[in-house]
Amino acid sequence: MRHLIDILDLSLSEIDDLIHTAEDIVAHPEAYEAACRGKILGSLFYESSTRTRLSFESAMCSLGGSVIGFADAETSSASKGESLQDTIRVVSGYCDIIAMRHPHDGAALAAAMTAEVPVINAGDGSHNHPTQTLTDLLTIHREKGRIRDLTIGLCGDLRYGRTVHSLVEALSRYPGMRFILIAPPALRMPEYALELMDRSGIEYRETDNLDEAIPELDVLYMTRIQRERFPSEDEYQALKDSYILTKDRIRPAREDMAILHPLPRVNEIATEVDADPRAAYFRQTKNGKLIRMALILKLLSEKEGHFQLIPENAAKAARNLCRNSRCITVHESSVVPYILKKSSRDAVRCLYCDNRIG
Amino acid sequence: MRHLIDILDLSLSEIDDLIHTAEDIVAHPEAYEAACRGKILGSLFYESSTRTRLSFESAMCSLGGSVIGFADAETSSASKGESLQDTIRVVSGYCDIIAMRHPHDGAALAAAMTAEVPVINAGDGSHNHPTQTLTDLLTIHREKGRIRDLTIGLCGDLRYGRTVHSLVEALSRYPGMRFILIAPPALRMPEYALELMDRSGIEYRETDNLDEAIPELDVLYMTRIQRERFPSEDEYQALKDSYILTKDRIRPAREDMAILHPLPRVNEIATEVDADPRAAYFRQTKNGKLIRMALILKLLSEKEGHFQLIPENAAKAARNLCRNSRCITVHESSVVPYILKKSSRDAVRCLYCDNRIG
Amino acid sequence: MRHLIDILDLSLSEIDDLIHTAEDIVAHPEAYEAACRGKILGSLFYESSTRTRLSFESAMCSLGGSVIGFADAETSSASKGESLQDTIRVVSGYCDIIAMRHPHDGAALAAAMTAEVPVINAGDGSHNHPTQTLTDLLTIHREKGRIRDLTIGLCGDLRYGRTVHSLVEALSRYPGMRFILIAPPALRMPEYALELMDRSGIEYRETDNLDEAIPELDVLYMTRIQRERFPSEDEYQALKDSYILTKDRIRPAREDMAILHPLPRVNEIATEVDADPRAAYFRQTKNGKLIRMALILKLLSEKEGHFQLIPENAAKAARNLCRNSRCITVHESSVVPYILKKSSRDAVRCLYCDNRIG
Repeated sequence: MRHLIDILDLSLSEIDDLIHTAEDIVAHPEAYEAACRGKILGSLFYESSTRTRLSFESAMCSLGGSVIGFADAETSSASKGESLQDTIRVVSGYCDIIAMRHPHDGAALAAAMTAEVPVINAGDGSHNHPTQTLTDLLTIHREKGRIRDLTIGLCGDLRYGRTVHSLVEALSRYPGMRFILIAPPALRMPEYALELMDRSGIEYRETDNLDEAIPELDVLYMTRIQRERFPSEDEYQALKDSYILTKDRIRPAREDMAILHPLPRVNEIATEVDADPRAAYFRQTKNGKLIRMALILKLLSEKEGHFQLIPENAAKAARNLCRNSRCITVHESSVVPYILKKSSRDAVRCLYCDNRIG
Repeated sequence: MRHLIDILDLSLSEIDDLIHTAEDIVAHPEAYEAACRGKILGSLFYESSTRTRLSFESAMCSLGGSVIGFADAETSSASKGESLQDTIRVVSGYCDIIAMRHPHDGAALAAAMTAEVPVINAGDGSHNHPTQTLTDLLTIHREKGRIRDLTIGLCGDLRYGRTVHSLVEALSRYPGMRFILIAPPALRMPEYALELMDRSGIEYRETDNLDEAIPELDVLYMTRIQRERFPSEDEYQALKDSYILTKDRIRPAREDMAILHPLPRVNEIATEVDADPRAAYFRQTKNGKLIRMALILKLLSEKEGHFQLIPENAAKAARNLCRNSRCITVHESSVVPYILKKSSRDAVRCLYCDNRIG
Repeated sequence: MRHLIDILDLSLSEIDDLIHTAEDIVAHPEAYEAACRGKILGSLFYESSTRTRLSFESAMCSLGGSVIGFADAETSSASKGESLQDTIRVVSGYCDIIAMRHPHDGAALAAAMTAEVPVINAGDGSHNHPTQTLTDLLTIHREKGRIRDLTIGLCGDLRYGRTVHSLVEALSRYPGMRFILIAPPALRMPEYALELMDRSGIEYRETDNLDEAIPELDVLYMTRIQRERFPSEDEYQALKDSYILTKDRIRPAREDMAILHPLPRVNEIATEVDADPRAAYFRQTKNGKLIRMALILKLLSEKEGHFQLIPENAAKAARNLCRNSRCITVHESSVVPYILKKSSRDAVRCLYCDNRIG
């Protein structure tokens, strides 16, 4: 059985296959409309996320399958004191595949350990959200015809934005990618991410000037800047307008530049931009459905085991080992903590939330 | 693409077609059971309304389609600060048709402007609820065999009841309709509605005496009288019983009189009346499903554009132009306000909520 | 039309048929995958119960049918002041069968009186939960190959546990059943239940020692012990560990003993037991889906009337006759109270909640 917890669970060629399947669904929708007849998706959203949830449910419906589940923690049985892993084990007896969102880091991995069917991580706290990254990759491929030799501008909150870190990590595996990191000083990409790019030999440049960067870009990936992230109201007021995308600001951009945004936006892209053919963010949300269709098909068709705790590498650790207050091991006493050595270079980490330990 | 925002969006012959389709579904259900296979209804209820929502969802299921959506605002993404129009645009990429309920007047029209699929207004604040009116028309047709030359009694709260105003407006387009308006003085039909009936040459009579009116009626449309609508508790106590329908009270009625009620009822129809063959209100709720099936079929089959803002008629207006505190333009800053001249006779109105401007 | 309100609504041979159908579904799933195509389940949960709800919805999906409904009272129309019986009558016009959970005793029976389709009681307050009992019976049959000549240990809270009382009542109808009732003194099986077993000639033994009983058992049915049920914290602390199932504790058990639990568990079965082949509680939850599939098929196929208020036996009683504060007749003024003489031996009882009257 195969799960998708982290985008790095997928090899590059597997991602290529998913993209190929998604594009084939666009070309031949009729070939897929009964592909999952009789199959049931468990849509288990422990916190609400309408767009992500509906894209999964729509994906399953368009494959001819059915959906059961819940849309928020109130309607789940969490309130009765049942452990997450028990709930997942029970519900996995009622469906063929699970898409799950949870407020705690590592919850999807903990769930996969007891599930009797494949689990797709639809967001675990501030940790992973691999189907968003797959959506972004498919969108770049469909908009530009390739994922290689591209200049990608990442703009906005590069410090706290999970989506952006995950996308950089995924794109770094492709050849010829070049990043322009556009952010105010307070919201720069964190050091560890820059080091990772250095080590991987990825070309990048940092700037706080969106206007200067725009003419070079093949793709502009916008993210939201939140007021509360700034050290002071003054600094926020001084900077915010320079990260709002308007018609005027994209005038010097290439004619085929693609503008992406994970949505929801608040005001970082003016609605006047929506009508511009370069605005790809609403196409991006549709790609989210397509890639999820491809992913459901892939996981349902694979039999071979993938997720395994290898005893040699995973030492049973003492309770409260992980100090990340959002980690599932802190919130669910029944989840057995593990530590993991990711590589010789890397530190010892919590298996669930990737937090450095010791 | 065609939406249904207001009952007046439909011509009389289109309503006739819908009624005909609904009656054909009763006669030949098997011909429709796969009519929407592979299609997805987005059931977007920003405020809960169990009966309306379930009638839409049941309608889509009986056409062989699927349903995605949410049942209240808590589980929608409204809480994340996304504009209604963005949410609708995204979700419209995940479904083939939308049924939507929202607490603000004009929200359905605002949604239709960005939706990429047809939008059915399932109630926008206290403004429109066209599928309720269609349900009433179908019920009259099925109960009486025609919509013409009928005496319709409207009883209860004729002042604040949106359902009743909408029904009168719709019925006024049919020949030979005669209304008896039965209400206590404090809850009389508003002047503007009476003027409209005068101008259209509709015959009507006002009374506060239900017992006197009953023997004349082909149809008795009951509505709820709310205590808080009365100027004083004394007045409420003095009048309330005379607007409660009982077995005794319908004894002098015609044998084929049909009793309608939009439901839910509280106590304005005694449960002892339910067993009377003239009690049509539970049949009415089933008609609600049938007419929604017909409507979904119609909107999915139409390609031609219908909803268009014609620049000459629709002047871009300043923010806060509309003074209706429930209007969507007041609650969503991203909805562009428009004003509209409905006819030479009519006042200038807000495009979304029909509120008179200036 | 046939409802399932109480497990005793079903004869032994009907239960046998349900078990047989459930086992046939396991053997020939393809024969059932379109059995309910075009049919709609109304899943009406007035209080949330994720596992029960999802097992019903999964059952309907695996029969090829569709599901509409709500997952908690907030999203139902209860808040608008509509009576339960009106809501059920309306919703029963939108579906082919109803599964319903409600916080008040007797609510399912009250609902069945106005429903136009079969109603399955998925739990009415602390009163009945017949599909849990059917699940338990199917599990015993699948684990042991028979329901006869078995020694069943019931362990934990035997005083307040509805599940256990219902199971004993159901099993007492089979030949050769022997019970060992394992509970601390404060949580012993109530006298009336023991008297019932005496009158039916059922062999049983009471003990507070789980370890002593274990080697004799064919089936061990565990239930949760709640701290608040004990007279004092001291007594709880002294006893609780002896009712927690661990690997060590089941070592002396028979190799083919089956461990059941209605779930959710809190800590009364250690997770280390889950891997033991005798741990049948997760198989039990899957059986819950199978028996509900069988039940839906049965009720949809039966035409003949079953639920009837026979005027001679059911005297219309005065308001507030029933003194059970959780009874539906106390909470819904529109539900007509009835009293019932169950048998010459039995007391006069409320028809809805079985509470003794007078």
